[in-house]
Amino acid sequence: MAAKDLITFDNEVFSAYAFWSAVLVIKVLLMSLLTAAQRFKTKTFANPEDLLDKRLKVKFDNSDVERVRRAHRNDLENILPFFAIGFLYVLIDPAPGLAINLFRAVGIARIIHTIVYAVVVMPQPSRALAFFVALGATVYMAVQVLLAAL
Amino acid sequence: MAAKDLITFDNEVFSAYAFWSAVLVIKVLLMSLLTAAQRFKTKTFANPEDLLDKRLKVKFDNSDVERVRRAHRNDLENILPFFAIGFLYVLIDPAPGLAINLFRAVGIARIIHTIVYAVVVMPQPSRALAFFVALGATVYMAVQVLLAAL
Amino acid sequence: MAAKDLITFDNEVFSAYAFWSAVLVIKVLLMSLLTAAQRFKTKTFANPEDLLDKRLKVKFDNSDVERVRRAHRNDLENILPFFAIGFLYVLIDPAPGLAINLFRAVGIARIIHTIVYAVVVMPQPSRALAFFVALGATVYMAVQVLLAAL
Repeated sequence: MAAKDLITFDNEVFSAYAFWSAVLVIKVLLMSLLTAAQRFKTKTFANPEDLLDKRLKVKFDNSDVERVRRAHRNDLENILPFFAIGFLYVLIDPAPGLAINLFRAVGIARIIHTIVYAVVVMPQPSRALAFFVALGATVYMAVQVLLAAL
Repeated sequence: MAAKDLITFDNEVFSAYAFWSAVLVIKVLLMSLLTAAQRFKTKTFANPEDLLDKRLKVKFDNSDVERVRRAHRNDLENILPFFAIGFLYVLIDPAPGLAINLFRAVGIARIIHTIVYAVVVMPQPSRALAFFVALGATVYMAVQVLLAAL
Repeated sequence: MAAKDLITFDNEVFSAYAFWSAVLVIKVLLMSLLTAAQRFKTKTFANPEDLLDKRLKVKFDNSDVERVRRAHRNDLENILPFFAIGFLYVLIDPAPGLAINLFRAVGIARIIHTIVYAVVVMPQPSRALAFFVALGATVYMAVQVLLAAL
């Protein structure tokens, strides 16, 4: 089937990609609100114009704020490349069962990654496991696209 | 209409998405040049190999450079997810008037965000407003895609 | 030709886009492993739960780790916008020879950027050249998409 014919919500692989992409877009955007919540709670603001009270000063080193920011940056590093390669992976017409489970793996692993990193801090290897499940699934898709495009 | 048939410049929604994506890609890439301009102006270089003059040392804490870098990072956090979800939103065949105005809102709000954050610093809530307009529009699109893909 | 008809691996421009996107997704994801390698080598961990040994403390200022992180962030700033605009550029039906060489330029320049920044540090202007080749090619594509979408 030509790649373009796979772009339809009747294709369950495309539909699963759209679903998990939408979930992860919302998840990534919520990280900004989580950072803001930590900034207000700890009164840690990075810009003079953000200071609520004239007696506050800009601060950059609160460990709770920085933890959320590291989790957020890790999302940018891993989820944003998934948006690009997940779409191309749909277009190589993969086996539906495998593809849908790969999208699920990325989506669920990245949600768990955020929870154990920045919501309820859990001992390692919980974060490392969540990280590598999503990374492995994304690299697998990229390799399949690479081979199809050679 | 099947999703794929919406991918044509004859579809004004797709065309508006492509237009605002191109504008925002250029805007994000220009942030690197704005950072570089601030680095040269304040002689703040993060790498030894970038030092223009042997008497300079690497520095990381210039507030003008860091301000541009925070604005740039905020772009990555908000504009890059829009590229993914805006495209999927086109494919659910939204009402053209609404969709085109949502893309416009994201594009204009993110340009204003950069101006008030890193070009002519303006008091709050100017930056917060610009931030939340773009965030709200992007989350709305994501929710619509999520519902269409269920 | 309608934009959607260009989305097929029979179109050598789309195929080249998919190939270089897959290469760059893998390249960006490998940056996490390069950061991890530097963290273990220099025992620089940013989270208490990552400390291998109870006698270690969290550290944020190792120059080798920070160098890889700057290279990684530069990838996010430049490669992720390429994924969005490269796809839209395919859809405006560009001259194949030019388009394929632009994708190649971005792909090769960004790989060289990483090598001279974070693997074998090279004097300037090697990094600046690699940076501007990729930036120039990406901005050119964005301008072409902008004009096509007007």
